[in-house]
Amino acid sequence: MRIHHECVACAINQCQKIVEMSLPGEEARRDAMLFSLKRASKLFSEDSIPAVVGGLLFLDLYEFIGNDDPFRDYKRLSNEIARRLVENYGDSDLRTSLKLAIAGNVVDFSTGYNPKRLEEDIKRVLMEELYVDHSGDLFDNLGHAEKLLYLVDNCGEIYFDRLFIEKLKDEFPNVEVFVAGKAGPIINDATVDDLIEAGFGELAEIISTGSRLPGTPIEHVSEEFLRVFHSADVIVAKGQANFETLSELNDSRIFFLLKAKCPAIAREIGVPIGSLLCLNQRLR
Amino acid sequence: MRIHHECVACAINQCQKIVEMSLPGEEARRDAMLFSLKRASKLFSEDSIPAVVGGLLFLDLYEFIGNDDPFRDYKRLSNEIARRLVENYGDSDLRTSLKLAIAGNVVDFSTGYNPKRLEEDIKRVLMEELYVDHSGDLFDNLGHAEKLLYLVDNCGEIYFDRLFIEKLKDEFPNVEVFVAGKAGPIINDATVDDLIEAGFGELAEIISTGSRLPGTPIEHVSEEFLRVFHSADVIVAKGQANFETLSELNDSRIFFLLKAKCPAIAREIGVPIGSLLCLNQRLR
Repeated sequence: MRIHHECVACAINQCQKIVEMSLPGEEARRDAMLFSLKRASKLFSEDSIPAVVGGLLFLDLYEFIGNDDPFRDYKRLSNEIARRLVENYGDSDLRTSLKLAIAGNVVDFSTGYNPKRLEEDIKRVLMEELYVDHSGDLFDNLGHAEKLLYLVDNCGEIYFDRLFIEKLKDEFPNVEVFVAGKAGPIINDATVDDLIEAGFGELAEIISTGSRLPGTPIEHVSEEFLRVFHSADVIVAKGQANFETLSELNDSRIFFLLKAKCPAIAREIGVPIGSLLCLNQRLR
Repeated sequence: MRIHHECVACAINQCQKIVEMSLPGEEARRDAMLFSLKRASKLFSEDSIPAVVGGLLFLDLYEFIGNDDPFRDYKRLSNEIARRLVENYGDSDLRTSLKLAIAGNVVDFSTGYNPKRLEEDIKRVLMEELYVDHSGDLFDNLGHAEKLLYLVDNCGEIYFDRLFIEKLKDEFPNVEVFVAGKAGPIINDATVDDLIEAGFGELAEIISTGSRLPGTPIEHVSEEFLRVFHSADVIVAKGQANFETLSELNDSRIFFLLKAKCPAIAREIGVPIGSLLCLNQRLR
């Protein structure tokens, strides 16, 4: 997916939030915003993938402001809240755990989400129908798959991913599961360390995408990651950034699980904003 | 006043609204936002006055999208609503008409204001106290002034300015009043044509700042305007852009009448966001 018109202001607004989280003084904030504007102007073009140029912009801004992980507290809070919350859903069936994994995708800094709203939002989202639902095909494909690659998105959300993977393992005990996190901190994305801390190691092989960029930008990931990517029979890709970075592959193995939270993603997929999706592009 | 850190994202967000108002197609919108980003990157520096760089950016964007007045409908609606509304306040005393002129400053596209809320907002604002109130000095100064220059801000708001000027003329019949509008359309600012249409010609001499830029940027206004500006005994400057462009003169003749609607203005003046102000910088 290439940028839509909203991606420009969205990236600059996220820079402002990062700057406000990291720098107390007005002069330093102003300089960091001028830096962001100039970097964005160099990075963004009509061919840009939003998660890639956004990620490159944020990493440059992290360096400028001297803070390698401005979202440390936000991520810790999201993880704590989700870890406690997911305990209420341990008895869920496979399909409910899939919906929970999509519902968990509400946690998203870029849309200004407050993780304290998570409990009520999860309950509400569970009442909604999926707007696109290819979960039947996902489960059919897993029935004769050997290897599942699960690409996580945000902190907090990962606790619902863990529950879903537990249920998948119960249902498809012969499938080998790989779970991929980011190589280092970027916005509120889950890193390899977050996956280890959340106990994914008991369920799956934890791997790194080899990149700090959001999503799974094939031109920036590691060789090692690519070997797993190419050998997987089924790929579950969580969240908007994974859709943005993988949609043009038009790969029949990929099932995108996400909430279409912004107008650009919703327009690109052709669904209403807020839609819950379990989407395989080849099945539409 | 020089830019604060919020001014960068605010300008880009306003560009997005302009683009969405003017262009229906996504590809054209995306190109216009990329243009805005690149222009803003060239224009903005730490020494920028927000109203000036914002105005230059918007005028360049108008040219890029081929629309010389994207706010035509917004301005017409604001004027219609305010024209009807002000009729309810014809009997106001001088001090109430001053508060109405400040209250009218809620009409502001840059903060996403919907002019349909005007009636209820005017009522609410009339109940509030001015946070800084130098109106006693304003009226004292007008008592021995010969020439008042009144710098208007937005469409809609100008109908409350007209009422205030009527009351000023009743109270200070010997003061000659000059009212200055913009030389051409820029966001929802009142132009000379808007002032003529609103009947200011019956009360005052209507003049042009000689510039389309918001506020009164002394380096961009006309010689003719400057002659009036320098010869005035008292200057009433409405709205944020006039504060931004004139604050560094630290001119004892200027009374700023505005609502501090954004965090940057509020921080610069040292008042809470939303404060109603009749401010003379030399009296603080």
